[in-house]
Amino acid sequence: MDMLTFSLDSDSSISLYEQLYFHIRQAIVDDTLKTGAKLPSKRKLCQFLDVSQTTVELAYAQLLAEGYIESVPRKGFYVLPQEELYVHRSDRKIEPIPLKKTYDFDLSPSQIDTTAFPFERWKRHMKQVIDETNHELLALGSVQGDFALRQEIATYLYHSRGVQCSPEQIVIGSGTEQLLPQILDLLSHATTYGIEDPGYPLTRQLFHQQSRSYVPIPVDENGVCVDELELHGVDALYVTPAHQFPTGNVLSVSRRQRLLNWALSNETYIIEDDYDSEFRYSGKPIPSLQSIDPNERVIYLSTFSKSLMPSLRIGYMVLPTPLINRYRERYLHFTCSVPRFEQHTLATFMASGDFEKHLNRMRKIYRRKLEIVLSNFRVYEPMIIVTGASAGLHVVLSVNASQSVKQLKQAAEDSNLFIRSMSDYQITNKMSSSQFLFGFAHLPEHTIPHIIERLMQAWGISGNTT
Amino acid sequence: MDMLTFSLDSDSSISLYEQLYFHIRQAIVDDTLKTGAKLPSKRKLCQFLDVSQTTVELAYAQLLAEGYIESVPRKGFYVLPQEELYVHRSDRKIEPIPLKKTYDFDLSPSQIDTTAFPFERWKRHMKQVIDETNHELLALGSVQGDFALRQEIATYLYHSRGVQCSPEQIVIGSGTEQLLPQILDLLSHATTYGIEDPGYPLTRQLFHQQSRSYVPIPVDENGVCVDELELHGVDALYVTPAHQFPTGNVLSVSRRQRLLNWALSNETYIIEDDYDSEFRYSGKPIPSLQSIDPNERVIYLSTFSKSLMPSLRIGYMVLPTPLINRYRERYLHFTCSVPRFEQHTLATFMASGDFEKHLNRMRKIYRRKLEIVLSNFRVYEPMIIVTGASAGLHVVLSVNASQSVKQLKQAAEDSNLFIRSMSDYQITNKMSSSQFLFGFAHLPEHTIPHIIERLMQAWGISGNTT
Repeated sequence: MDMLTFSLDSDSSISLYEQLYFHIRQAIVDDTLKTGAKLPSKRKLCQFLDVSQTTVELAYAQLLAEGYIESVPRKGFYVLPQEELYVHRSDRKIEPIPLKKTYDFDLSPSQIDTTAFPFERWKRHMKQVIDETNHELLALGSVQGDFALRQEIATYLYHSRGVQCSPEQIVIGSGTEQLLPQILDLLSHATTYGIEDPGYPLTRQLFHQQSRSYVPIPVDENGVCVDELELHGVDALYVTPAHQFPTGNVLSVSRRQRLLNWALSNETYIIEDDYDSEFRYSGKPIPSLQSIDPNERVIYLSTFSKSLMPSLRIGYMVLPTPLINRYRERYLHFTCSVPRFEQHTLATFMASGDFEKHLNRMRKIYRRKLEIVLSNFRVYEPMIIVTGASAGLHVVLSVNASQSVKQLKQAAEDSNLFIRSMSDYQITNKMSSSQFLFGFAHLPEHTIPHIIERLMQAWGISGNTT
Repeated sequence: MDMLTFSLDSDSSISLYEQLYFHIRQAIVDDTLKTGAKLPSKRKLCQFLDVSQTTVELAYAQLLAEGYIESVPRKGFYVLPQEELYVHRSDRKIEPIPLKKTYDFDLSPSQIDTTAFPFERWKRHMKQVIDETNHELLALGSVQGDFALRQEIATYLYHSRGVQCSPEQIVIGSGTEQLLPQILDLLSHATTYGIEDPGYPLTRQLFHQQSRSYVPIPVDENGVCVDELELHGVDALYVTPAHQFPTGNVLSVSRRQRLLNWALSNETYIIEDDYDSEFRYSGKPIPSLQSIDPNERVIYLSTFSKSLMPSLRIGYMVLPTPLINRYRERYLHFTCSVPRFEQHTLATFMASGDFEKHLNRMRKIYRRKLEIVLSNFRVYEPMIIVTGASAGLHVVLSVNASQSVKQLKQAAEDSNLFIRSMSDYQITNKMSSSQFLFGFAHLPEHTIPHIIERLMQAWGISGNTT
């Protein structure tokens, strides 16, 4: 065989062995060195190229590791067969993210007031955790989340939502997007879920992603229509009882009882999403479904996205006994997706009482904004009827106008206001009612009267000046 | 109707309206107040009970909100029908988490050396980010992760793995557990996946959870057997080419080429999990599959769990153009599961050069440990043959002994050593070969010779003293 003649540059920033490796690799790819060809022995090649034996050894080792050549004991190194790599040129491009049209005000629900967040106190807790932290925090914690945080959540849930659970039943995760798929995995994969219509679009998308089947169940002024579950052959239900999203209606007591009985007799589960229960403005909080269920048929799901900040990415679920046992069997080798640092910071924030103080403060801020919303819409009655105002971060406007939902939406946009219609959340009977969602939590207080005035002008609705 | 006679205690810590609410609620639940019964008017009841009208109003409002009573305009308040709540007593208990038997040493793979982590520098970056942080960081960032971090990852990937991508193609998430399900969602739900056998058990579990079908594809000394893909009717492949887990074998060049051609001609995708590619001890890094693919058929997946710390929970994927477009359509309303604080800290850690320094340092530490492992096992040849030692955090021991795998495992445990066998990772042909995985990364250097000696004694293997 021919000796390999390559010029190696000892002044190059690329090491000699890498240069040699590239040259031989190229020769193999070019078919200059054909399949089955024997390479020179290491000893001969290093003499020939005037390089150290180590250089040749490293180059051969790399070719060997990547599978360009093989080593036959007591014989030498041989070129392995190569496949021709087909190339299919395409001119696919990454489509630019469509520039979101910006509006003077976006009235979509689910936004929070971040300006009132006690940032300096939060930072202080962060720094304290950093200072107290040792290498232990680098290791993986419990898949359910750190015990200290679960204990704080259990205490909080008992006092605020009547939820009775031990920290052992709590699983911490990055929010509904991550926890709901785990719930779907714990229940039979053949389950048909009932979901609220109108309802949270993200839930629907998660069911679809996990290839689970679901059936829309209508919602009326008493919440989800429990009587229709049997009709639709539903096996389990996802529900927002305390403040139905997006209608803002409360699931009535008799429906709660019927729902719990249904779950017991069907030996199935109800997924209770208690997403914004912290913010109820009149009367006592509506008890959670979990708190009145004596039969462990409710999976309780909630989040800190509304009560603290969306970017924190901490949510949690409370699993009934049979499911927590299944969870531990199945998720033993998984890892909690929330960094332990955030878990510790939140645990100290809660333990110090700062969380409760913050909630009380936010409740007052939101209540004041809500009152401004209600009083400013009152002069437009009965053209505008406001409902769903007992809790949460948005209200529902029923608009008594001759224009279509689409026309009203467009008119708002023409006035530089973005508003969601109820039909954006409806699965069936879309566009049947002229309702809109007015998210107020994130709006600066003083802007609210002007926004409402502008919206009413856009819709051609004038107020009662009496 | 009868007036409601309740004794209210004005000295109680429970407010009068709450007491009144509880009394009426109890009367409804007890059936003392029957369905359809009319409640006294607010005016009459407050006079009768000698409380303020507000007290009665609040109590009625709460009963109304929870659906115990209804308000009939111009008539009054009426008791709504109640459902009897069935109770099914059970004595389900939360099973205590089985106490993990602890061993003097756990030799499982995938553990890292956390003692060498530059904790003080990491803390300094954390504090810097805290100080520079403003309220903006409280809002949600991009669903793909913060641009600054994606940019650092793109640069790092190009230099270390030859991966050519723009930050627009990168998606940051909480690790494989969270990113792989997103990939499965982007591809057709009817896809049949090929997975490596032996392979990573977690991957298998994720496929199962998402209700996706998969077929085990055998692995030999050249990596996964690409020729068997057609045979098994596989549509897409999950593969660890640089350092197959757990065999440690490298996917040979000709198989890489065949694999890429297969993906092109089948118009499908290869999921390349490059989980521990940072730690290669001899020669140049094996190029990533993504870097030699001209046709955008490779989805590249990796993590910081091995290179930084498992508890950080940051991983990422690089999506080919058609998939990143699909991702943006589908995940527009989702949220990146990694807190923005961690993203910023990591971005400054990388930008400062601290990450590269840390990697170089760890590579040296691990290489030294690996050399101790290799030299200490060498005296037991040919009873023990060590393979898969060119990269990663574990080696494979082929044991030439008469005992069964089960007996060898038990013997190790009796000597207070926990060791994983290859069969723990095999799907088919379990227990066919007497191979074990020796994870060394987390072991203190000075303990390694003693551990190996103890293991050899447990297995009754004596060394060559020549």
